[in-house]
Amino acid sequence: MPAKARIGILGASGYTGAELLRLLIRHPRLEIVLLTADRRAGQAMRDVFPQFSPYDLPHLVSIEGIDWAAAKLDLIFCALPHGTTQKVIKDLLTKAPATKVVDLSADFRLADPAAYARWYGHEHHAPELQSEAVYGLVEVYRRAIKTARLVANPGCYTTCAQLALLPLLKAKAIATDEIVIDAKSGMTGAGRAAKEAMLFSEVSEGFHAYGVGHHRHMAELDQELSRAAGREVIATFTPHLVPMNRGILSTIYVRGRRGRAPSELHALLATAYAREPFVHVLPFSETPQTRHVRGSNMTFIGVANDRVPGRAIVVSALDNLTKGASGQAVQNMNLMLGYPETMGIDQVALFP
Amino acid sequence: MPAKARIGILGASGYTGAELLRLLIRHPRLEIVLLTADRRAGQAMRDVFPQFSPYDLPHLVSIEGIDWAAAKLDLIFCALPHGTTQKVIKDLLTKAPATKVVDLSADFRLADPAAYARWYGHEHHAPELQSEAVYGLVEVYRRAIKTARLVANPGCYTTCAQLALLPLLKAKAIATDEIVIDAKSGMTGAGRAAKEAMLFSEVSEGFHAYGVGHHRHMAELDQELSRAAGREVIATFTPHLVPMNRGILSTIYVRGRRGRAPSELHALLATAYAREPFVHVLPFSETPQTRHVRGSNMTFIGVANDRVPGRAIVVSALDNLTKGASGQAVQNMNLMLGYPETMGIDQVALFP
Amino acid sequence: MPAKARIGILGASGYTGAELLRLLIRHPRLEIVLLTADRRAGQAMRDVFPQFSPYDLPHLVSIEGIDWAAAKLDLIFCALPHGTTQKVIKDLLTKAPATKVVDLSADFRLADPAAYARWYGHEHHAPELQSEAVYGLVEVYRRAIKTARLVANPGCYTTCAQLALLPLLKAKAIATDEIVIDAKSGMTGAGRAAKEAMLFSEVSEGFHAYGVGHHRHMAELDQELSRAAGREVIATFTPHLVPMNRGILSTIYVRGRRGRAPSELHALLATAYAREPFVHVLPFSETPQTRHVRGSNMTFIGVANDRVPGRAIVVSALDNLTKGASGQAVQNMNLMLGYPETMGIDQVALFP
Amino acid sequence: MPAKARIGILGASGYTGAELLRLLIRHPRLEIVLLTADRRAGQAMRDVFPQFSPYDLPHLVSIEGIDWAAAKLDLIFCALPHGTTQKVIKDLLTKAPATKVVDLSADFRLADPAAYARWYGHEHHAPELQSEAVYGLVEVYRRAIKTARLVANPGCYTTCAQLALLPLLKAKAIATDEIVIDAKSGMTGAGRAAKEAMLFSEVSEGFHAYGVGHHRHMAELDQELSRAAGREVIATFTPHLVPMNRGILSTIYVRGRRGRAPSELHALLATAYAREPFVHVLPFSETPQTRHVRGSNMTFIGVANDRVPGRAIVVSALDNLTKGASGQAVQNMNLMLGYPETMGIDQVALFP
Repeated sequence: MPAKARIGILGASGYTGAELLRLLIRHPRLEIVLLTADRRAGQAMRDVFPQFSPYDLPHLVSIEGIDWAAAKLDLIFCALPHGTTQKVIKDLLTKAPATKVVDLSADFRLADPAAYARWYGHEHHAPELQSEAVYGLVEVYRRAIKTARLVANPGCYTTCAQLALLPLLKAKAIATDEIVIDAKSGMTGAGRAAKEAMLFSEVSEGFHAYGVGHHRHMAELDQELSRAAGREVIATFTPHLVPMNRGILSTIYVRGRRGRAPSELHALLATAYAREPFVHVLPFSETPQTRHVRGSNMTFIGVANDRVPGRAIVVSALDNLTKGASGQAVQNMNLMLGYPETMGIDQVALFP
Repeated sequence: MPAKARIGILGASGYTGAELLRLLIRHPRLEIVLLTADRRAGQAMRDVFPQFSPYDLPHLVSIEGIDWAAAKLDLIFCALPHGTTQKVIKDLLTKAPATKVVDLSADFRLADPAAYARWYGHEHHAPELQSEAVYGLVEVYRRAIKTARLVANPGCYTTCAQLALLPLLKAKAIATDEIVIDAKSGMTGAGRAAKEAMLFSEVSEGFHAYGVGHHRHMAELDQELSRAAGREVIATFTPHLVPMNRGILSTIYVRGRRGRAPSELHALLATAYAREPFVHVLPFSETPQTRHVRGSNMTFIGVANDRVPGRAIVVSALDNLTKGASGQAVQNMNLMLGYPETMGIDQVALFP
Repeated sequence: MPAKARIGILGASGYTGAELLRLLIRHPRLEIVLLTADRRAGQAMRDVFPQFSPYDLPHLVSIEGIDWAAAKLDLIFCALPHGTTQKVIKDLLTKAPATKVVDLSADFRLADPAAYARWYGHEHHAPELQSEAVYGLVEVYRRAIKTARLVANPGCYTTCAQLALLPLLKAKAIATDEIVIDAKSGMTGAGRAAKEAMLFSEVSEGFHAYGVGHHRHMAELDQELSRAAGREVIATFTPHLVPMNRGILSTIYVRGRRGRAPSELHALLATAYAREPFVHVLPFSETPQTRHVRGSNMTFIGVANDRVPGRAIVVSALDNLTKGASGQAVQNMNLMLGYPETMGIDQVALFP
Repeated sequence: MPAKARIGILGASGYTGAELLRLLIRHPRLEIVLLTADRRAGQAMRDVFPQFSPYDLPHLVSIEGIDWAAAKLDLIFCALPHGTTQKVIKDLLTKAPATKVVDLSADFRLADPAAYARWYGHEHHAPELQSEAVYGLVEVYRRAIKTARLVANPGCYTTCAQLALLPLLKAKAIATDEIVIDAKSGMTGAGRAAKEAMLFSEVSEGFHAYGVGHHRHMAELDQELSRAAGREVIATFTPHLVPMNRGILSTIYVRGRRGRAPSELHALLATAYAREPFVHVLPFSETPQTRHVRGSNMTFIGVANDRVPGRAIVVSALDNLTKGASGQAVQNMNLMLGYPETMGIDQVALFP
């Protein structure tokens, strides 16, 4: 446990990079020594994100020239695009094997090499690291994360759905063949790349589903729901875009097994999360709003009766950039470095 | 069929009243002769809605003093709150029985007096009118509407869901016990009453479900879905609020019966609406956005495969103030007065 | 005056192109026969703007292959980027000299070739057309527009400021050296090009000025304010971006000359616009909101006392896509083709 | 200097109350022991603001029953409406004279009893406290605040304008009779009272000025600008509402005196704030965005050339709930209790 860990962020010019910085700048036990952004190399963070103008931060550099061994980093956050990550981390861990890594991409989330190849259409470039990687959903894998060198930070949609469903599946309390997840996300989930479809005038003042009938990135959800249930689970999942910056809300329709009433499902969740610092179960029948977790690392979960007997509605909400990405990444970092789990990520939500 | 019909709007100071005026001001076959708003009586419309400042409109008056017979109105739109409507319309039709009425409240939507009493907790105040009223979903009841004196304009959520589901239920193409309607609405659906929960800072930059597990206003949906299916249908329904002004999007999860594939469901809808001026079915696998129907009287419907075999996702979108309320009301008026159905409501959507 | 004019739009895949189509689809005296968009050539309008899905429109083509003479167009709207326009229009008018053109770019707005060269850093490519072009602010140049072949449609910011200031300058009622124009625009003014700075998450939930101290596109404003005043006028001008789609609001600070009170300035404006169909002066002391002109071709203007004696605040509001661009372009077209000036552009504003 | 100060908030159910709690919950040197809200008395904070659901906080009580002496409060934040504050604080300080007070209302901001009576139309109810109160703009009155018992926290609009103007006026660097402040605020500045004009659908997707030509709450600005300039200053001021939650941006037009160039004005501001933790001057010609200070206690200031020679444009931005209200109140508290000035209010801005 270092007095002040030396930290790097790969891919610091995107939204998850900015969110990491927001949290890490005030974290008392670390020093930010490396920031990369290939297209913005040579620039100051203030040119990329003016909110950091008052703070003293390293300039952005390109990944290519870095001497990983000389950098003496204790931990690196990798916020690179899906696909490019495998090679970078393989190279890094070869040259500086004592460095710890929290990877925010999807590259190390699947445990099964065959599943990876099936979903992504090619063999994994670092299969030995794939098997080493620990899935970083802290509430489930806390113990393994503490000793991990490489943690695969979960996706935002899947974190939101898993936290609502895993305790119910583990308890075999719901039917596994009728789960419908209707998910709604703020715009930051789409990243910072300049695309016509993400312009303000294309996405404000309206609402839509996207990728309906396509199934990308569901592999991670299938894997974890199935693990919890002890049998294969394929849930219906539809993502939507909300004209707001932050937040995911999942409205999840389930049927109780063996007569389990919605209130019993609620009790299961309340018990499962009673001691969790970042999951809060609301009183039965109350459901959460994304704005009440904005900027915080909290997940709020509610359960209510469906009007159809035997069915329940579970609603979970989190901030896709915090608990859905960078906040959870810092939570993982805290465990990996032996710090208190909530250090630097205990901000109260910003509302209004 | 009058050369220029004499039209009144009861409750002109709310959002559905303003939307009626937006459409009626440019309708070539009518004259607006009466506008009421009890709390704003004596004011000009420009004081209540400044966008009407350039137009010559009657001042707002209170309902109380009106001599219905002397007013010689051809047709009245009633945009009063649920509950107050029954007595007003009863009084009006007693004194001016030749006047036609399009009622935008829920008061005359249920055909069965027992169902009304069960849902609303009291006997209907005008049961003879309840049985006379025609349910104003034009695509289903066009013929009856043409000769009706009193039309009950459908609700916004239920119009959106019904247009997507009725042809499928009539064709017995989907299971009736597994329908999940996840609905999302813009803020104008909540009306113009000053409530803390509807302030900008309470509802912008966030997303939430409301009334989960409560079942108000579902009576109308149950009635119409069941009529179409020929058996009782109770659908799961969750409404959500989107930080936008106009629009409803319903994401509807269904299971095909007897092996009906999603593409077959799509074909059923495309055929059903092939000649409808205000329902447009997108190519298979495309799903709509609310912004593309904003300010128009169109409903866009899409169908896609669910990732769970045997299931389909149907998505429908409309503008809650236009096809979901005032546009549909004018569509009803056109039929009742013998005008072309699309007259005055053929605006192209306003996007961006 | 053709029974149905044959109309083309060059650059139909941007926001001003879409707004032109919204208005023209319902215009009773024309036929849309040509739509171009180089990067989207071959696609249907519904692929570019799904709101046009229900309408029968020509596919998008590239400009290059067009035979202007064979196209037999009565009038073309040119919504191409600034700079590329000159050559296209020169070519077009050479080959089809009877075609009329409404150009929405800045290329033909300056009357003085020397001013053009000074502002844009190069000689004009079609100086003979530059001198032929009529500046298309209808309220000022209506007579000349009626017989023009080439009309330069004014810019959105400058239309908003000019309509508020020109009658005051013509009457020599305000000081010319102390005019401050603080202008705020919605996001559609920035166009549809995919730029990081225009992403939803970059521009929602915040407000900022841009280009402060730079002076692009002020040439047009200088020219017209100076013409009206009969002497050189250089106004202070700061543009800002508002997280909304449509609308420009200009808050203009002026000092009355020779003791002119704000109420006298108001009277001057009210008189000047008394018969104008698209400029509406509010009662003294009331000021407009952009939302009350949304989607309409109206400009609302208000005048109030400043708290500093001798000074007045003039506020004007319009929809940048309608009166600020495409609506004004159709207004020009109507005059050029001999149609009633308000035909097809008399929509009531969409609020809420 | 107490180990843990006992803190109360009067008026905790409004937005400034919520913002105080967001900051104070994580402040390491205090204990929140009293929360009042007359209309919500008896409720838990989680019922009023669900984001506080995970935290242990006192229930809301009514002010009436409080025994101020027994409460043994070290410091009270008073976030009550303007007007009701004077009597409450007078009563409180009579019964518990050792309690310190930071008042967020306008009641104690004016030093001159005659000015108070002139602006508010009645004598001040606690003139002895009025003369005791220290104006809480820390950057100007830091020394006096440290020993004050009663601090009048400045208004949000006026903090934003003062921080940009005071160093320029003190240096006699700008003309005092030509200052134009064009100010734009987010919606939280209007408070949480349920008013039709503040509903989402009334204020989203549009922009407007309000109160133009009226001059409320300018007394405080006049007082402080005049103090700094050493002569009477009356600035032009127009407030506008932006469809966003948080943030104020002031675009300020000034003329340099005795040939002072804009870059010299910039240098004056940069020097004045070089050591201030919460005021950051951007490089010359760069101007700030409100989103880059959201949720932080920072003020960003920029200066650029006007296109009119001799004039400069100064732009300042802050979060109206943080530096414009509750953050500044905590900054005052820190000084009054002898804590480090930045304790608990050094959050990095939340963007996006």
